[in-house]
Amino acid sequence: MDLKLSEEEKLIRKTAAEFVDKELIAREGAYLRQPAPFLPPGAPSRREFDAATRTELTERARQVGLWTLELPQSLGGSSMSAVARVLIHREFGRSILPFRPISIPAFLFESKYGEQLANGSLSLALAFGEVHKTGELSGLQTLYREEPDGCILRDSSIFISNPRADLYLFPAREQGTQRLGLFAIERDLQGVTIGDEVDLTTDGTVARMVLKQCKIPTEQLLGYEYEAGAIVAGEQLNIAARSLGIGMRCLAASIEHAKNRVTFGRPLAQRQAIQWMLADLSIDIRTSTWLTLEAAWRADQELSYFEEAALAKKRAAKMAFQAADTAIQIHGGYGVCKEFPFEGFYRDARLMRLLYGREAELDRAAGERFLTSS
Amino acid sequence: MDLKLSEEEKLIRKTAAEFVDKELIAREGAYLRQPAPFLPPGAPSRREFDAATRTELTERARQVGLWTLELPQSLGGSSMSAVARVLIHREFGRSILPFRPISIPAFLFESKYGEQLANGSLSLALAFGEVHKTGELSGLQTLYREEPDGCILRDSSIFISNPRADLYLFPAREQGTQRLGLFAIERDLQGVTIGDEVDLTTDGTVARMVLKQCKIPTEQLLGYEYEAGAIVAGEQLNIAARSLGIGMRCLAASIEHAKNRVTFGRPLAQRQAIQWMLADLSIDIRTSTWLTLEAAWRADQELSYFEEAALAKKRAAKMAFQAADTAIQIHGGYGVCKEFPFEGFYRDARLMRLLYGREAELDRAAGERFLTSS
Amino acid sequence: MDLKLSEEEKLIRKTAAEFVDKELIAREGAYLRQPAPFLPPGAPSRREFDAATRTELTERARQVGLWTLELPQSLGGSSMSAVARVLIHREFGRSILPFRPISIPAFLFESKYGEQLANGSLSLALAFGEVHKTGELSGLQTLYREEPDGCILRDSSIFISNPRADLYLFPAREQGTQRLGLFAIERDLQGVTIGDEVDLTTDGTVARMVLKQCKIPTEQLLGYEYEAGAIVAGEQLNIAARSLGIGMRCLAASIEHAKNRVTFGRPLAQRQAIQWMLADLSIDIRTSTWLTLEAAWRADQELSYFEEAALAKKRAAKMAFQAADTAIQIHGGYGVCKEFPFEGFYRDARLMRLLYGREAELDRAAGERFLTSS
Amino acid sequence: MDLKLSEEEKLIRKTAAEFVDKELIAREGAYLRQPAPFLPPGAPSRREFDAATRTELTERARQVGLWTLELPQSLGGSSMSAVARVLIHREFGRSILPFRPISIPAFLFESKYGEQLANGSLSLALAFGEVHKTGELSGLQTLYREEPDGCILRDSSIFISNPRADLYLFPAREQGTQRLGLFAIERDLQGVTIGDEVDLTTDGTVARMVLKQCKIPTEQLLGYEYEAGAIVAGEQLNIAARSLGIGMRCLAASIEHAKNRVTFGRPLAQRQAIQWMLADLSIDIRTSTWLTLEAAWRADQELSYFEEAALAKKRAAKMAFQAADTAIQIHGGYGVCKEFPFEGFYRDARLMRLLYGREAELDRAAGERFLTSS
Repeated sequence: MDLKLSEEEKLIRKTAAEFVDKELIAREGAYLRQPAPFLPPGAPSRREFDAATRTELTERARQVGLWTLELPQSLGGSSMSAVARVLIHREFGRSILPFRPISIPAFLFESKYGEQLANGSLSLALAFGEVHKTGELSGLQTLYREEPDGCILRDSSIFISNPRADLYLFPAREQGTQRLGLFAIERDLQGVTIGDEVDLTTDGTVARMVLKQCKIPTEQLLGYEYEAGAIVAGEQLNIAARSLGIGMRCLAASIEHAKNRVTFGRPLAQRQAIQWMLADLSIDIRTSTWLTLEAAWRADQELSYFEEAALAKKRAAKMAFQAADTAIQIHGGYGVCKEFPFEGFYRDARLMRLLYGREAELDRAAGERFLTSS
Repeated sequence: MDLKLSEEEKLIRKTAAEFVDKELIAREGAYLRQPAPFLPPGAPSRREFDAATRTELTERARQVGLWTLELPQSLGGSSMSAVARVLIHREFGRSILPFRPISIPAFLFESKYGEQLANGSLSLALAFGEVHKTGELSGLQTLYREEPDGCILRDSSIFISNPRADLYLFPAREQGTQRLGLFAIERDLQGVTIGDEVDLTTDGTVARMVLKQCKIPTEQLLGYEYEAGAIVAGEQLNIAARSLGIGMRCLAASIEHAKNRVTFGRPLAQRQAIQWMLADLSIDIRTSTWLTLEAAWRADQELSYFEEAALAKKRAAKMAFQAADTAIQIHGGYGVCKEFPFEGFYRDARLMRLLYGREAELDRAAGERFLTSS
Repeated sequence: MDLKLSEEEKLIRKTAAEFVDKELIAREGAYLRQPAPFLPPGAPSRREFDAATRTELTERARQVGLWTLELPQSLGGSSMSAVARVLIHREFGRSILPFRPISIPAFLFESKYGEQLANGSLSLALAFGEVHKTGELSGLQTLYREEPDGCILRDSSIFISNPRADLYLFPAREQGTQRLGLFAIERDLQGVTIGDEVDLTTDGTVARMVLKQCKIPTEQLLGYEYEAGAIVAGEQLNIAARSLGIGMRCLAASIEHAKNRVTFGRPLAQRQAIQWMLADLSIDIRTSTWLTLEAAWRADQELSYFEEAALAKKRAAKMAFQAADTAIQIHGGYGVCKEFPFEGFYRDARLMRLLYGREAELDRAAGERFLTSS
Repeated sequence: MDLKLSEEEKLIRKTAAEFVDKELIAREGAYLRQPAPFLPPGAPSRREFDAATRTELTERARQVGLWTLELPQSLGGSSMSAVARVLIHREFGRSILPFRPISIPAFLFESKYGEQLANGSLSLALAFGEVHKTGELSGLQTLYREEPDGCILRDSSIFISNPRADLYLFPAREQGTQRLGLFAIERDLQGVTIGDEVDLTTDGTVARMVLKQCKIPTEQLLGYEYEAGAIVAGEQLNIAARSLGIGMRCLAASIEHAKNRVTFGRPLAQRQAIQWMLADLSIDIRTSTWLTLEAAWRADQELSYFEEAALAKKRAAKMAFQAADTAIQIHGGYGVCKEFPFEGFYRDARLMRLLYGREAELDRAAGERFLTSS
């Protein structure tokens, strides 16, 4: 047993930490304090990240190897281990800026979209419908059937959380065989409409993707059950890692604030109530870290890891939520101000608790496995 | 012991419930789904309630006796009991619309502002600074001294949460005696500036009120320690009552959703996880109700009630927070959509937990009383 | 609404409190520190209460009206209200001595056993089998059928928790009709054997009651569904009331200890951690008190109260458990010593959480009612 | 990073697991069901483990290398790593039998007691007084001073939890220098009396050790601050490891019971409430395992590990407590019967939560470190 990070892993972590400190956290003030914007009529009123900066940051992240983390070495990437990806997503999680690497399943780099995905000229999102909520592929309802000139997707309507991507991965089950197929669907495919965009409590949106009489070339059927499962587990690991980052940021900021803020004649830091909250949070971060690293390590070892990823996400997202709550409690009035990142972490974490398995559902699934196994 | 509401109290509750159902909840859809507004340049982008509707609703509420609840009978009001006010605020709490009766301390109706406050042509807010957070008057820092031609307030700067009121109640301690005085300060008093308005996680704001070389006519010193304490306890009771309303709304909506929503082949309502959450919430609502009614009843009986009000607020606000969290969990994706009221309750309740005493501070205060008393 | 106790209720509470202080708590030292007893070979080694003292205390309790609380006025009793009984059981709950009034359903006083039960020469216990655990009559499994010369109980075997009573109330369902009948079974009835006594974690035992070819005179069928339900609700109220007493004792003793005990140079009482625990406990006691009084008050008003009694028991028993845990935590080493009452309260409360409905079962039942009703 | 156990560690675990299954768990039935014993007058009435079996088991454990785990290779031992010791104590924790290896600090094997400790003819215990409770050496109050013919211990009186050992390790601070010295005190040293043995809620006892005018040869001063700290950390790791064993046993037994037990017409295992409890418990076991292994691994790597050991003990003991509570809840009536091990685990775990640092104290210590550091 060796619980140390390797030298390579330490370097990756350090690179990511520096990028996040210098490029993201340094920009938070401007982002959070953006004045009530002079909006064109009808424009959305939510807090947004301007496109030019996003492009520039993407370029810089790419230069230091913090983008398209799954890119194979054959295409000039470093096909990072799952552990390394956790370390990177953890660092990005520390910033409230809505900027972090998108996961692109490695098999996509072998498709016709590979090059565009690798250079960033094509953006990718998941259209996983109910699976976004439950984390279980068993809930999939769209069917498809293969015909000589392509696959016909049955008409359906699902929610997606990234309504502006160029390309969507869309899972469906083959009529009859129930075999799961994972399709790459272009945004402007005939029969696809995306609309009814709705604001979420976070600064994001959801929209409705409607498929009507869609036919897709069979070569765009790119994966099956295992690939879809790995994508879900990967998203769960990303959420878990991002949660760790939120926890670390909230803890560090709360300690700093507690040391400096004086109430009723002495620093907050000397109050036991505050000490308790911080001690509890620090242990929760530590245990969530182990659950997350363990799942990622298992993935790298080619051991089964889907269940571990689900549990790590459950615990870590709950911890991030608690971390934001604690930071608000300790920062008091500042905690609920939009100029500080904590209320944003708090809203983000609420959504993260729902994504890819609500707590009760993950517990049920785990409980059922126990009781049927052995 | 008689735990029933009186006939009069039942009538008040019924009137308030009908008003809230017909006038407020019926308007929620329009309020929550307001399209990205065509804003004048520089206008705030947060969700707002339009002024015309607000005026109209105020008039209707006044007609059925649900406004200026403290107005004495001598001025045509009904000087409602604390229990009755809890019943009314509980009903208003059920709606996410930012519309509910402002509490106006009875002694103000005897001041020169009385008539304008009674007819609504003057709006009132509290400028209680740190007390908004701690719920304790001991934290007050502004000093004043009386001079022949009025009271001089020492220069100070505090946060206020209602930056657009016409009149503020401002507590300060007399230099030397430490006696607390409660001043009525008009918005345009010389030396007062209100600025730096900042968005909160709720759809509200805070701003900074700065006093510089303010002199106030002595006749505007309208109350003392007890009056200020009663105002804090009154605000705590209002928050507790509003929390009960949030709890009731979230519970009712969750039950309704759970009955109708089918997942994995059976109604949500049949899942034990859901049943548990709802059973727990219902008991929490019940216990918070008793704590709140007990504090209000003590106020009406002229028993001491400040501590009871503080504890009721602590428990009830925590319960409202939990209620919103449960409603989000049960509604899933809808729960975090801005079209539904739950994410709004959730943000509001987070702030309510901080107002007039964070949990840890109230516990400390209660603990200290235990250990010094008897 | 009037939340005050009546003068009569206050007097009852005072009488009970004095009895418990003078007669029970004063004897605890001797009971808890009883030396390793000189036991006759084969005698049980658990802590027991000697029979002579028990008899004497019973007599004294009877003299001040604190025994056979349900005895009708026609038989010289005071047929106390449910609220009064809660007040009395709460006081008895404050002592660790295994001595408290047994509830005797009023209808039994009209049976042939009435006089003996009233004067204490006959002892009564419940043989409710699974109902002791679940609190639900629906789980009853023993059947009976009426024949000309008496009722035949089908052979069965159940657990009972009072293996030395003279008379048992035994519920069974009529074959075919499923009508519930409540039988009075004498200990030495032919076909009844009681054996296999087993120690519990408390200082009590359970044993197995086996019925084989039992026939009972029809006149000993003394009640039906409602009476059985009222007995369960009554036991739940007793447990709730006793829990309140445990909570009060643990809180008072912990405050006392915290004031006097000095660690690391200052009284425990000044530590926030301690203050928090005590503040939390005091609110839990208060809310459990309201739930319990509300259920009892409803019973007295002839409103439905079974569900309320079940919820009061659930919350109060959990609170008593937490109270004992807190007292142990605050008393440290003394807390786990058998010379102090806290470890005993802790073991008792663990059992009380299981009796007449475990938490999860009560929640499920409450949840199901919600979701089927209206 | 490599999260796998080494082959050697796996073998150690397997050996310990087999020993516990075959030698300990197989004997539990007899131990738990021992009939009310035919005691000699005045003998203690608590559950005890008979001496002959204890001797025999010790011998067998020694044969397979599961005793005197710290014995250096030079003396024929294997001086096991901290990780290996955690694996062994975890297995012993699975049995309710009061039989597990005593930790003997390695430096003692170099003293004149070394051989006797190694062959088991001398038994060792700690006399750490307040440190047993707080886990902090700063609370030590006994002073000593060195004189030409030995060290004089100032008169003192402390509690010890193993009143029948032959040899005690006793820490004291040097008058003036405050340097901590660790003494080996023989039971029959002049001036030492051990008395006032008192039963605990577990089947153990505490007693009072009184020192009066004790003088100890200077050669029996065997260690200093670091050695005492390492002993405390070692005890914390043992408790953490034993807690893991309790958790594993309770989880396994609860799963088994839930699969077989049918209530209301279906196996317990199908109830979500049960599934939840088990899922939650399994994650808690996993996180406590990581915290414990991490602390042990750090000890083996010669990194600082005292804080980590304290936190591991805090979380693991709380988890063991919860595990026993869950097992009782799931086993219902059986759970509180003395014939089953769960109520015993529950009482043991309550004490383990208090030993070497109550939760609140550990949190305070951790909180203070945060806020003073960096």
